[in-house]
Amino acid sequence: MRFDLSLYVITDRAIGRDRPLEDLVAAAIRGGATMVQLRDKTRPLRDVVATGRRLLAITGPAGVPLIVNDRADVALAIGADGVHVGPDDLPVSDARHLLGPDRIVGASAGTVDEAVRAEADGADYLGVGSVFPTSSKADAGEAIGPEGLARIRAAVSVPIVAIGGITADNAPEAIRAGAQGVAVIAAVFGADDVREAAHRIAEAVRAARE
Amino acid sequence: MRFDLSLYVITDRAIGRDRPLEDLVAAAIRGGATMVQLRDKTRPLRDVVATGRRLLAITGPAGVPLIVNDRADVALAIGADGVHVGPDDLPVSDARHLLGPDRIVGASAGTVDEAVRAEADGADYLGVGSVFPTSSKADAGEAIGPEGLARIRAAVSVPIVAIGGITADNAPEAIRAGAQGVAVIAAVFGADDVREAAHRIAEAVRAARE
Repeated sequence: MRFDLSLYVITDRAIGRDRPLEDLVAAAIRGGATMVQLRDKTRPLRDVVATGRRLLAITGPAGVPLIVNDRADVALAIGADGVHVGPDDLPVSDARHLLGPDRIVGASAGTVDEAVRAEADGADYLGVGSVFPTSSKADAGEAIGPEGLARIRAAVSVPIVAIGGITADNAPEAIRAGAQGVAVIAAVFGADDVREAAHRIAEAVRAARE
Repeated sequence: MRFDLSLYVITDRAIGRDRPLEDLVAAAIRGGATMVQLRDKTRPLRDVVATGRRLLAITGPAGVPLIVNDRADVALAIGADGVHVGPDDLPVSDARHLLGPDRIVGASAGTVDEAVRAEADGADYLGVGSVFPTSSKADAGEAIGPEGLARIRAAVSVPIVAIGGITADNAPEAIRAGAQGVAVIAAVFGADDVREAAHRIAEAVRAARE
């Protein structure tokens, strides 16, 4: 399916300060989010499944794809638009096989090698980073900078979404380094006004393309 | 598919003292294990997937079903025989839908209500317990005893495998309370001689049926 990586928001209950994910996601979409990833490592999976179904009722009518982090089975069970896998998750080739050609399979890549392999294994897009230093993901590793992103951009042809420490201020650097869009957690879901925070980053991405 | 719950062994790397799961499972099958569950919450999922594929090369030729704990996507990806879900995992109805009618869906049940619901939602068997006090699973709750197992037995018609604190000595009680078989972790994979430990329990189950 077609998708737009411009502003890809990733849920996090702690960063969202336990505000309902449905409210946060709805506000992010009103602000301009073009893609949503359900990521919830704290709640029991059965609750995540229920949350996913409620989020689909918000993202679907908005035409915004809902991607499930890690769990291809949850994505299939709830009829989500895709799955995103990291280097330790389900192999990209297995995720692709399970989801078929029409759903979206995204993969994380922090190096050129990982990116080339994920593309060869069938990823539809790559989440590349951490581009900037970040506190949202403890396991994100050293920042690769816009230069690292540009090296990966040169090595693959699938679209790239930049992740890691993205703000409205530095998003243009990521776009100019070759990313189709930016993925954010804290910069949107950590904000008091989620809609406004999403809007500022969406505008920064748009401006950087001109 | 048809399956035999007589001796259902569940992997655990810590209890197995980090001996290779392939060796432990092969020994358990030589001792009489009739069903194997891959349960590994410590390794990255990508490694679990690889382990699962190796285990299938052992269980398949032996005619012993391999069931994957929790992850329906892994079960489908590697072509395992089924999935086992607990109360916090993927809903039974979703697991059934994903796996189709021919693969095995097992569910944990600690109460009559949970058992009735899991059966209604399409479970092929129920893992009922903890029947006896156990140290293998920190979240197993209070032991329900053979009496609790008998109450659940009376309320459902799907086969039941008793779990929780099972040994060769108390396995007959579980069978006489109505279980078709027993599920074990520590009593088999904690043993120095896994084949011999499995053999003793398999014999105890067989004797209890006569």
